[in-house]
Amino acid sequence: MSTPSNNTPHATTAAEGKFITPLDHIQSIDVPHSKIPVFDSIAAFREWRKEQTRQNKVVGFVPTMGALHDGHLDLVKTAKKECDAVVVSIFVNPAQFAPHEDLDQYPRTFDTDYASLVSTNACAAILLPKVSEMYPVGISLDRSQQRGAFVEVQGLSHQMEGIPRPHFFRGVATVVTKLFNIVQPDRAFFGQKDAQQCVVLRAMIRDLLLPITMRAVPTCREADGMAMSSRNRYLTPEMRKISTLLYRAITAAKKNIVEHKVQDREEILKPAYAIIEQVKQECKDQGLDFDIRLDYLSLVDVETLSELQVLGESQAAILSGAVYVGTTRLIDNVLINTEEL
Amino acid sequence: MSTPSNNTPHATTAAEGKFITPLDHIQSIDVPHSKIPVFDSIAAFREWRKEQTRQNKVVGFVPTMGALHDGHLDLVKTAKKECDAVVVSIFVNPAQFAPHEDLDQYPRTFDTDYASLVSTNACAAILLPKVSEMYPVGISLDRSQQRGAFVEVQGLSHQMEGIPRPHFFRGVATVVTKLFNIVQPDRAFFGQKDAQQCVVLRAMIRDLLLPITMRAVPTCREADGMAMSSRNRYLTPEMRKISTLLYRAITAAKKNIVEHKVQDREEILKPAYAIIEQVKQECKDQGLDFDIRLDYLSLVDVETLSELQVLGESQAAILSGAVYVGTTRLIDNVLINTEEL
Repeated sequence: MSTPSNNTPHATTAAEGKFITPLDHIQSIDVPHSKIPVFDSIAAFREWRKEQTRQNKVVGFVPTMGALHDGHLDLVKTAKKECDAVVVSIFVNPAQFAPHEDLDQYPRTFDTDYASLVSTNACAAILLPKVSEMYPVGISLDRSQQRGAFVEVQGLSHQMEGIPRPHFFRGVATVVTKLFNIVQPDRAFFGQKDAQQCVVLRAMIRDLLLPITMRAVPTCREADGMAMSSRNRYLTPEMRKISTLLYRAITAAKKNIVEHKVQDREEILKPAYAIIEQVKQECKDQGLDFDIRLDYLSLVDVETLSELQVLGESQAAILSGAVYVGTTRLIDNVLINTEEL
Repeated sequence: MSTPSNNTPHATTAAEGKFITPLDHIQSIDVPHSKIPVFDSIAAFREWRKEQTRQNKVVGFVPTMGALHDGHLDLVKTAKKECDAVVVSIFVNPAQFAPHEDLDQYPRTFDTDYASLVSTNACAAILLPKVSEMYPVGISLDRSQQRGAFVEVQGLSHQMEGIPRPHFFRGVATVVTKLFNIVQPDRAFFGQKDAQQCVVLRAMIRDLLLPITMRAVPTCREADGMAMSSRNRYLTPEMRKISTLLYRAITAAKKNIVEHKVQDREEILKPAYAIIEQVKQECKDQGLDFDIRLDYLSLVDVETLSELQVLGESQAAILSGAVYVGTTRLIDNVLINTEEL
């Protein structure tokens, strides 16, 4: 790696005048010398990218949908340790939302996102592409109306998160392919919280022979164990308080495996179901005005994502689940017999 | 562009010992100083490719399934005019064949292909990847059994050639994406003979935001108008003699448009159907032991590939068809109101 440098004159000069500088309208931060170039034009970004190649820089990439939290920032900092120049993209991808999902409501908080990225001192460029450039022929949320090129990873996309969201991983694989083709990173960083996404994208990188090293970075958690997520901001304080139930459920199940050497699926998951049932009952007893609804608990092989009835002795697996707290859907996972996805 | 050079010491040194040199077992050609490196390892090829970047070379790419004819060689020569270093891949792609099609019978003629490429003096490297590297989790011809990442261009893949071959363009888009990710060409060259393929791939390059310029090169024809094709070698001399029927049919239809300003589909295609019917009858009358069977004639808009009932006054369109001569399926096309696909 060459000497790390976020904002060499060279890196920004190529696209001078083509990127927007949100600092102009951000009042709350005090880092006037830490401007990060923000590219909303793909052509301008490509010029910047070429300059990185000319300077022989190792480029890292953290794709996001914005609404950045400490989990994202941890990805950026991790990337900076391994790369010379880290690109963060912010793009709320229509193709991974179904018509009934929260595309319109999804939080868009660019100004604070920008300030957060400046604060990391680890981000060299922000890619903020327009929907019209990312989907040149448009993008309908109705899959039957969609036109153009899509990427699908067969065999890994229709279980777990793919059951309630059959459109989801096709949307993710497609947008990540597009972003990869723009950013051309040497290394790409994803959060382990989206475990199935990590498995799908690792398979995609392998199958499409993309010259990219993928890293799945462990989930960032609040002090009480709650996995960080952009959707957590949908939770009221009352909801937030009980929302650790999913993490408590899957860690109880993991304990069953690690400490008690349980291998039978039903036995493994029993305490997890019990915790969720208990919290559900408590909410009811306290007359809270929202419901808890378990979507699923899952124990799958880490390679095939097939549900396991019996866990092999040192079989690498993902123990995961999804739960609705009110209308907010939370997901979480822990790894069994493996350190990184 | 830097000075063209097919075989600088640098270009081959990076992968020394990792590529096979088929000249060692080719006796029939006399060009000992024109060795072209042949890479059957993707990793070794990538080293060669990096060297091209270091030397600032514009890389052109001609993907083929081998069984090269003058049409392919014309693509290579055209590419060389526009690029510093031209890569030719030879890969018979299982994913674009259905179980009942001719994957096993497809001609594999590497030695003569190699000699042909040497004779062009325009090919800098040959990529000859293994199926196991191109499809890391294997590739079943039975689509329901396929696993892994696939690329599909929706809206352009299931008409015309996609009707009898619903698997075909998904297979093509997938393998070309893989090859692009290996070769990382600046420009890619395809033959206009596969018109729908050109339209599908141009859309794919646009939608996936691949930084590649696509060129569709006019079809090479024999003296009698017959479009060159690797599958022509399946034809007996008797079959070959009448096989110009498709070209004669579509040029008659085109004449209807260009000279007689006909706009109605049925009127446009009438002489084409007549020519095919006539040749069919002649074969029968002469007691030839093979059948002629028209698969389809098509007149589509060049952007949407939707069939046109009425051709707009200066509407760009593709006039194409497919016909079986015996068991060999021939395709051909001519362009209306446009020069390049």
